[in-house]
Amino acid sequence: MSGPQSKPQNQPMFDRIALIGIGLIGSSISHAARRAGLAGEIVGSARTPATVETAVRLGLIEQGFVSAAEAAEGADLVILCTPVGLCGPIAKDISRSLRPGAILTDVGSVKASIVRDVAPHVPQGVHFVPGHPIAGTEQSGPESGFAELFDGRWCILTPEPHTDGKAVEKLSAFWEALGSRVEVMTPEHHDLVLAITSHVPHLIAYNIVNTAAHLERVTDSEVIKFSAGGFRDFTRIAASDPTMWRDVFLNNREAVLDMLGRFTEDLAMLQRAIRFGDGDTLHRLFTEARAIRRGIIQAGQDTAAPDFGRVPARGATAAAPADKKG
Amino acid sequence: MSGPQSKPQNQPMFDRIALIGIGLIGSSISHAARRAGLAGEIVGSARTPATVETAVRLGLIEQGFVSAAEAAEGADLVILCTPVGLCGPIAKDISRSLRPGAILTDVGSVKASIVRDVAPHVPQGVHFVPGHPIAGTEQSGPESGFAELFDGRWCILTPEPHTDGKAVEKLSAFWEALGSRVEVMTPEHHDLVLAITSHVPHLIAYNIVNTAAHLERVTDSEVIKFSAGGFRDFTRIAASDPTMWRDVFLNNREAVLDMLGRFTEDLAMLQRAIRFGDGDTLHRLFTEARAIRRGIIQAGQDTAAPDFGRVPARGATAAAPADKKG
Repeated sequence: MSGPQSKPQNQPMFDRIALIGIGLIGSSISHAARRAGLAGEIVGSARTPATVETAVRLGLIEQGFVSAAEAAEGADLVILCTPVGLCGPIAKDISRSLRPGAILTDVGSVKASIVRDVAPHVPQGVHFVPGHPIAGTEQSGPESGFAELFDGRWCILTPEPHTDGKAVEKLSAFWEALGSRVEVMTPEHHDLVLAITSHVPHLIAYNIVNTAAHLERVTDSEVIKFSAGGFRDFTRIAASDPTMWRDVFLNNREAVLDMLGRFTEDLAMLQRAIRFGDGDTLHRLFTEARAIRRGIIQAGQDTAAPDFGRVPARGATAAAPADKKG
Repeated sequence: MSGPQSKPQNQPMFDRIALIGIGLIGSSISHAARRAGLAGEIVGSARTPATVETAVRLGLIEQGFVSAAEAAEGADLVILCTPVGLCGPIAKDISRSLRPGAILTDVGSVKASIVRDVAPHVPQGVHFVPGHPIAGTEQSGPESGFAELFDGRWCILTPEPHTDGKAVEKLSAFWEALGSRVEVMTPEHHDLVLAITSHVPHLIAYNIVNTAAHLERVTDSEVIKFSAGGFRDFTRIAASDPTMWRDVFLNNREAVLDMLGRFTEDLAMLQRAIRFGDGDTLHRLFTEARAIRRGIIQAGQDTAAPDFGRVPARGATAAAPADKKG
C-alpha cells in the first residue's frame, strides 16, 4: 500500500471535497474517492433536505447542506455535479465561500457554456478547471452511484490557457485515482466531439421512442412486446434524466444542430437508397459501420460480449401491459 | 421428466428438422431444440463447405449439405434461416424435396415479401407457416448461436387464413418449447410493427455510425475514445450482418419509409425546439420517453440493471487506435 514513492497514508489528496449536487455522478465520485482514500472528508449539498438526508444516510457525505455556499466553505476541491443550467447561478452563490487555492471544477456534459456562465464568478486565487467524465448510466439520484463508474472511462478537462498548470495536474491525478483516463482539450472541441458521441445519440433515442409511442396502427403494447429487435436499446438511453438533457441541448445548440444536420443529410441518402432499391449502397454503408465497433472494443470502451452480455429473461412474466387504443 | 400428460421420451416433436442456413438463428435453433429434445435428428445446409463442416464439428447438425434440396429431403420440419432475399430462390430449389405433411417455415425479419416469394413454390400438402423470432445479437455465423437466445422472447407467426390450423399449432408448440412466446398476426401488420421496433432503429444506428466516421473536425480516434457517452450503444446494433439488413430494407420498403418519415418529422420538431431554446418542449418529450422503458422492463423484454448490466472495463488497455487525419 505505501511504497517509497507514495504519500503518507494519513495525507489524502484533498482535505475536504465538496460535492454540489449528489446525483449519479456526485454519488459515484464519493464512492470512488473513498475507495482510493482521496479525501479527508466529503461534504455536499442538494436542493432538497430529503436528498441531503439520503446522501448522509448512505455515507456519501459526512455533512450535508441545502445551501451550496455552506457546503463549499473551506473545501480545497469543489465539484459542481448539477445539471448544466444550474452551474452559473450556483457559481455566483458560492463565490464568496471559495477559499484561495481551492480547485473548482464541474462534471457537466457541455463545456463552453460552463466557462461562459461560471468563470465570471470565480474569485482571484481559485483555480477553475472545467471537467467532464464520459461515464454514466440511465439512472439518476444519490442511490444510483457506484465506485466503478469511472473505471477505464475518459475524463475530459478544458482549462483555459491561463489556468494554473499545477491545479490541472492535481485534478488530472484525482480523476486518474478515481479510475479514469484524462484528456485535455478546448471547451469548443469538447462540445463538438460530445455532440456526435453523446448528444445527438441521446436526441435520436428520445425521438424514436416518442415516434413509436404515437402510431395509429401499432399499439404501445406491441412496441413493448417486440422491442427486442433493437428498439429496447434506444429506450435505455431515452430513460436518462430529462432535466440534465434539456440543459445539454439548450447549452450546446450550435454543435448539436451542426451534427444533426449531417445526420439528417446522411439519413436522406439511406432513405433514397431504400426507395430506389439500391442494395449495393446499403450493403457498402452497413459494412463500413462495423469497423468503428471493433475500434471501440479494442479501446476498452465497450464489452465484446454479444448483446452487451445481457442475460436472456427465461421465465419472464408473460403478461404485457394493456393495449393502448391504436 | 415424463408425467402422465407428456409424450413418451422416445418420440420427439419432429423426426427430422432441416435447417437451411446455419448462422446465428439456425445454430441457436439447433442448440435450443437439443436442449428440449424436440428432434429425432437435425440436418442442415449452408452455402459453403466450410460452414457445413463447422456446423457438423460443433454438433449443430448430424448431416450437412451444400445443397438445400438434399438437406430438406424427408424432413418433417424445414426452417429457412437465410437472409430474406434468398428465401424465394431456395424455396424454388427445395420444392420437389418437400415431403407431404411437412411444415415449411422461415425466420426472416420481413414477412409479406416472404409470402410473396416463397408461397408460389410450396407444393400441395406442405404447410407453409412463415415465422420470425424477435431475438438476436450483433454476431453472426454458426459459432454465435446459443440455446437461450429465444428464452422469454416473442416469435411471430404469419399464416394465411387457409393454412392448416394443426400445422400452426404444432409450430407454435415448437417455438414455445424453444423458450419463446408466440403471437399470430398478418404479414402486413408484422412488417409495420417490425419497421418501428427493429428496422428503423437499425437504420438510424447504421446512419449515425457513418455520420460519425466522416467528420472533418472530429477524428475516428476521438469518436472511439469518447463513445461511452451513448454512441457505443448504436455501434453494437450497427455491427449486425450487412447482407441480412440490406435484404430487410429492400423487402420492407414501404413500411420502413413510412416510419422513417414519421421519425424525421418528429426529429424536425426537436431540432426546432433546440434552435429556439424551447426547454419546456424538450423536457416534456424527454419525460414522456421514460414510460416505454418501464413497460419494456415490466414485460421482461430487457434487463432492469443499469447500463444493461455492462461491467466497467477496469484496466482496459489505455492505447486508442491511431488517429485518422481529420
